[in-house]
Amino acid sequence: MLRFLTSGESHGKGLTTIVEGFPSNLHIEEEYISKHLARRQMGYGRGGRMKIETDRAEILSGVRFQKTMGSPIALFIKNSDWENWTDEMASGKPKGKHDKITIPRPGHADLVGVSKYDLDDIRNSIERSSARETAARVAVGSVARRFLEEFGITVGSFVENIGGVYSKDNYSDKLFNEVDPKFDAWSLSVESDKSSVRVMDENHEERIIKKIKSAKKNGDTLGGTFFVVASGLPVGLGSFIQYDTKISAAIAHDLMSINAVKAVEIGKGFETTNNSGSISHDEIVINDGIISRKSNRAGGIEGGMTTGLPIIVRVGMKPIATLMSPIGAIDLSTMENVTSRRERSDFTAVPACAVIGESMLAWTIAKAMLDKFGGDSMNEIMDNYKSYTTKLNKRLKKNFRK
Amino acid sequence: MLRFLTSGESHGKGLTTIVEGFPSNLHIEEEYISKHLARRQMGYGRGGRMKIETDRAEILSGVRFQKTMGSPIALFIKNSDWENWTDEMASGKPKGKHDKITIPRPGHADLVGVSKYDLDDIRNSIERSSARETAARVAVGSVARRFLEEFGITVGSFVENIGGVYSKDNYSDKLFNEVDPKFDAWSLSVESDKSSVRVMDENHEERIIKKIKSAKKNGDTLGGTFFVVASGLPVGLGSFIQYDTKISAAIAHDLMSINAVKAVEIGKGFETTNNSGSISHDEIVINDGIISRKSNRAGGIEGGMTTGLPIIVRVGMKPIATLMSPIGAIDLSTMENVTSRRERSDFTAVPACAVIGESMLAWTIAKAMLDKFGGDSMNEIMDNYKSYTTKLNKRLKKNFRK
Amino acid sequence: MLRFLTSGESHGKGLTTIVEGFPSNLHIEEEYISKHLARRQMGYGRGGRMKIETDRAEILSGVRFQKTMGSPIALFIKNSDWENWTDEMASGKPKGKHDKITIPRPGHADLVGVSKYDLDDIRNSIERSSARETAARVAVGSVARRFLEEFGITVGSFVENIGGVYSKDNYSDKLFNEVDPKFDAWSLSVESDKSSVRVMDENHEERIIKKIKSAKKNGDTLGGTFFVVASGLPVGLGSFIQYDTKISAAIAHDLMSINAVKAVEIGKGFETTNNSGSISHDEIVINDGIISRKSNRAGGIEGGMTTGLPIIVRVGMKPIATLMSPIGAIDLSTMENVTSRRERSDFTAVPACAVIGESMLAWTIAKAMLDKFGGDSMNEIMDNYKSYTTKLNKRLKKNFRK
Amino acid sequence: MLRFLTSGESHGKGLTTIVEGFPSNLHIEEEYISKHLARRQMGYGRGGRMKIETDRAEILSGVRFQKTMGSPIALFIKNSDWENWTDEMASGKPKGKHDKITIPRPGHADLVGVSKYDLDDIRNSIERSSARETAARVAVGSVARRFLEEFGITVGSFVENIGGVYSKDNYSDKLFNEVDPKFDAWSLSVESDKSSVRVMDENHEERIIKKIKSAKKNGDTLGGTFFVVASGLPVGLGSFIQYDTKISAAIAHDLMSINAVKAVEIGKGFETTNNSGSISHDEIVINDGIISRKSNRAGGIEGGMTTGLPIIVRVGMKPIATLMSPIGAIDLSTMENVTSRRERSDFTAVPACAVIGESMLAWTIAKAMLDKFGGDSMNEIMDNYKSYTTKLNKRLKKNFRK
Repeated sequence: MLRFLTSGESHGKGLTTIVEGFPSNLHIEEEYISKHLARRQMGYGRGGRMKIETDRAEILSGVRFQKTMGSPIALFIKNSDWENWTDEMASGKPKGKHDKITIPRPGHADLVGVSKYDLDDIRNSIERSSARETAARVAVGSVARRFLEEFGITVGSFVENIGGVYSKDNYSDKLFNEVDPKFDAWSLSVESDKSSVRVMDENHEERIIKKIKSAKKNGDTLGGTFFVVASGLPVGLGSFIQYDTKISAAIAHDLMSINAVKAVEIGKGFETTNNSGSISHDEIVINDGIISRKSNRAGGIEGGMTTGLPIIVRVGMKPIATLMSPIGAIDLSTMENVTSRRERSDFTAVPACAVIGESMLAWTIAKAMLDKFGGDSMNEIMDNYKSYTTKLNKRLKKNFRK
Repeated sequence: MLRFLTSGESHGKGLTTIVEGFPSNLHIEEEYISKHLARRQMGYGRGGRMKIETDRAEILSGVRFQKTMGSPIALFIKNSDWENWTDEMASGKPKGKHDKITIPRPGHADLVGVSKYDLDDIRNSIERSSARETAARVAVGSVARRFLEEFGITVGSFVENIGGVYSKDNYSDKLFNEVDPKFDAWSLSVESDKSSVRVMDENHEERIIKKIKSAKKNGDTLGGTFFVVASGLPVGLGSFIQYDTKISAAIAHDLMSINAVKAVEIGKGFETTNNSGSISHDEIVINDGIISRKSNRAGGIEGGMTTGLPIIVRVGMKPIATLMSPIGAIDLSTMENVTSRRERSDFTAVPACAVIGESMLAWTIAKAMLDKFGGDSMNEIMDNYKSYTTKLNKRLKKNFRK
Repeated sequence: MLRFLTSGESHGKGLTTIVEGFPSNLHIEEEYISKHLARRQMGYGRGGRMKIETDRAEILSGVRFQKTMGSPIALFIKNSDWENWTDEMASGKPKGKHDKITIPRPGHADLVGVSKYDLDDIRNSIERSSARETAARVAVGSVARRFLEEFGITVGSFVENIGGVYSKDNYSDKLFNEVDPKFDAWSLSVESDKSSVRVMDENHEERIIKKIKSAKKNGDTLGGTFFVVASGLPVGLGSFIQYDTKISAAIAHDLMSINAVKAVEIGKGFETTNNSGSISHDEIVINDGIISRKSNRAGGIEGGMTTGLPIIVRVGMKPIATLMSPIGAIDLSTMENVTSRRERSDFTAVPACAVIGESMLAWTIAKAMLDKFGGDSMNEIMDNYKSYTTKLNKRLKKNFRK
Repeated sequence: MLRFLTSGESHGKGLTTIVEGFPSNLHIEEEYISKHLARRQMGYGRGGRMKIETDRAEILSGVRFQKTMGSPIALFIKNSDWENWTDEMASGKPKGKHDKITIPRPGHADLVGVSKYDLDDIRNSIERSSARETAARVAVGSVARRFLEEFGITVGSFVENIGGVYSKDNYSDKLFNEVDPKFDAWSLSVESDKSSVRVMDENHEERIIKKIKSAKKNGDTLGGTFFVVASGLPVGLGSFIQYDTKISAAIAHDLMSINAVKAVEIGKGFETTNNSGSISHDEIVINDGIISRKSNRAGGIEGGMTTGLPIIVRVGMKPIATLMSPIGAIDLSTMENVTSRRERSDFTAVPACAVIGESMLAWTIAKAMLDKFGGDSMNEIMDNYKSYTTKLNKRLKKNFRK
């Protein structure tokens, strides 16, 4: 069983993650994880923080000579700014007086956080609810991604819209309408990583940057949408047998768990609700004995299980809630209406969020792979995987032969 | 800890559910559960099955003299058509020959199901992947709903769109823009239950029925969208501390787990991605010492926790995949391209799906309530609940007083 | 993932169980389950209840034509005495007045049960805490056992002692000291099932019956110890990587969860604490390329993992707490000291408990098998199992070849 | 929900632990954790390793100004010998050649570990299966213990026997036969910590030391038994409603999960199987309105729930499997019979194991406390706890009043 826990505050010593359940003998390098951590830090429209941190995940345990040992993997991402926060975030006795944060930001965990946890300083809530935590998720997702690569499964993403600015070309159409057995989802990231806002064409990029500049000028922020796609999947991850065994539910859970995400669609999602059934499903075809589909509107999932076609997820991220422009709030120390504190922040984080989305989807799939194929070593799980995928069609034929 | 398992095939003896973890001394009657089971079976556009079944949940255990005992509650919903299926669905030796289903329906679990589970008859996959299972979920959700009522928490729903037909009035605007402490989410269902398609106005109903009739004529099916809303919530269900403790993730999981659901939004969801931050969040205000918000665009959730305002979820259901009109498929017994088998089915099930959505949201919230407040009896949990909610503002004031 | 929930009260309609996660195409018959349910009901020293109930598990779902479908299996064991209890245990409104039980029995859940769950009648606690529930566990354990048989894994048991009466022959010595690759643990039950108290020799049986008769005469009860053994195991179920992945911990959990069980040992357990290391471990030997052990003092488990040798568990069951002889208690309706109510009950249930122990151990092992080997159908899991076990020694040789 | 994961190899950088679910505002200091880590390292008969390591747990996250924040707590215990192992245990590319360990030690995870995980060096199995991991458990158990102290719950232990050497005084008799509401379980550790082998009297200590010296001389090792006791418990932790909700099962699981533990008893355990029911249970008495018991043979648990009396657990630890004296084994590089490699090791670790046992029992109880009382801050959980415990007897009286 695959599981992970992350820990760590935004301005604490760093982020610690333990991930357990990956088989032994998986090749993994710190560089590989760092590469994906860097992808999370890219993107036009980020504030000052991203320049301070250049994240590296140090492997504390679970890997020897570049191979997993089967034991839990601990990863540590140091907060490079920690030395400036040793007093403010000390785990020991406080030295002197500390300024408390008393004005909760609308749209953040601030107000509910201090209420729920009976805290006397909003900092105690901010520190963990901050999206800084997502760096740890990218680290753990990178291990998941490395694992999936061994089976030819890749995950990629691109940004569809920032602040309402969409491309004239609808890149997702192709994903839904064309079924290409050679499609490699990582190619989407190879393409989008070239763009500072992780979109697929230059014109779109320019228009978005213009939009971000305008938001910046107004001290405002922007959200957006992105696609996360996985390819190379076996048939039959997840199951319809219980409400909590469906991979669609797991995907929705894991993507919705990302900070600021408010919407998740699989396949054509909401759009399909406007159409009739006859043009909404993916016709099954057989050519030269190979079973396939004419389209992938279902986004690779039927009955809570993978069909083998790419998983296509569309995700909506709300605008960042830390604003430079004023918004109504209250001061908890006076219990009076005030204007929310202004803070430097990112203006948009949609490109980063797409990378986090890739990480979470990689996680969901890796978990489903281990659930289905079992195994404690890479050799064992690979044997199981190959045995299943090789025999799949033979068994189908044998079972249904009249 | 609250948990449930359902079991049962579409044409088997019935649906059996065990739900465990509700406190003792909760008042519950079979009639109450049956009422909600009946709500699931209503709706214009249903096929023949709904007329056969009038679901009743028999309480097999866990309740004595109309009160929960603390022990697991078992519920049994008999399939009233079972006597016609005793041979076809026997758990014992088959009698004589049985026709196998060999043509998988696109959009259903059929093809993946038989592949994954190595089955020689699509019936073996259909029977469990069928949406018949959702009756069991409504039963378990009714217990959850009964529990929530004790705390003044209600759940309601209405249909927004079927087959692309929307109302001229946007009823959700009011939900997002007005903050009414007296709002009762169940009132939405009181209103929508009056309509055969569970919408909020007659004109809308008429237009949808017209649309369904047209689909019916073409042997086609329709999907749609609906809102599920909960009110009366305490501040602070769910938590930001880990990716799997966020109530937003749990909601997405539980709603996406419903058959044919492909999209879930919380609050303004995708729409908010087109707007800037300054008009996307819910300003915090204090009036006469009472902290409130000016709007509820977040749909009652910030930082993965309830804000106390209504939870608003929008859900998208794809068109039913069992069609009377032809769609390309293959016959597994010949491995040749054919037209999918035509079957009588519902033409749309969006109104029913909204009731199932209510049930799942009630479940998610009940689980979060028990996680937060603990307790083994209604008295104990009520004490804990009242203690927390009563002291909440006092503690906030005390903690932040300068 | 394998999981189950049982429900049902001792005098309610019956016991309902849902078990989920077994692969498809496992052959299972109601008769098979009933056979093991009958084994639980045997045994000298049982009271009147066992004569009333002759348990049968009705398969409500998950099995078609004697094969599992992959979907959850629901089992229902009717309480044949239910018709005499319809008023007393009604889920609906009570009819007339009902006598409450007000004197808690020491050694039972009675006093803590009514306190914890805020109950006004000890019956509400008794009904679920009763060992009647273990019939459901035997049912679910029978499915697990059926599954294990496919891999040549069997589970058996025998009683070692009742009320302090031990055999002159120490049958467990053989288990610890002899390593026989052909040993079949079920043979232990074949032998012990011949005895009315499930022991291994007639002289022992006679002495125990004498002891039970004497207890009966005094209105007293007896506990005892038994061995549960499993054979045919693969190397490497369970893992040392985390405290909750060890199969030893799972075994202790599952056996200790049986009503009245107070002690669990694996291998030589407490006895080994009196010896030095040099005579406590199982020397490793290789003969003709086959790696084996000279003994099995570890009871088949090293480092929280199966060694491949039989799992040997010794379990201690306290004397039944429902006595005919007086014992000090209080009456909750008067809050005065009284003598505990006298009740007819079993005089000892150790033989039955051993059968329940078999069931739980079968469950623990089945769960570990599915964790390790994954798979959704019998064919798939069998492929995975064979691939692993066949390659085990080859890989070992290859990995360590200089 | 309380959960933890540990990670780290015996000769790696250190042990990392993340523990999540403790409420906010719990006072905790590194010193407190270190104190218990030091207790684990004490004890006559330890080998060289204990002198190398003086464990300290560094708090990496989750605590600010000596108070928990509600967020996950990460703890890091540095391996002080790490600098000598940087090459041997590198997570990156190996430098030069490395000697492999090829002879598995009987009684250890060695042989099964390399088989299961397809490893080419026994070191890869040893490193995680080593009891070094238990330091992390003591760290996490210290946080649990700190939490429990707030409710007046303490945990203590003492050694009963090492290598078959028992005290003439049977200290456990008192625990079972006397019911003292003022008993503080920590007092047991205060007393036993004075002894180098954690026993209760000097004569016993001397005899044990003699035994250890003798074992040392022979290059042999010793196991033993110890008692772990908790006091100050509320009535009703755990539940009888399901096999996996019983606190007895959780205790057995958590204690059996400790390295080298092979036996767990609750209350009089195996001894009670030799006695009749009339002298095995704990009579209930009421004096001045206070309900109590005449004895505590049940070890504080009836029906899988705490009775409020001390939890008494007896645990058996097998002799350490790393021996200086020869024992039969094989060399995997030659597949020939050899004598197991001789290694320096502890001669006995029973005193340390008892401290680890305390830690695990503290964990089990803390988990059950949070399950029952819920709550996100110390104030909230304390309110819930007080409300329940204060009202317990009142409700009992009210419920049963005629």
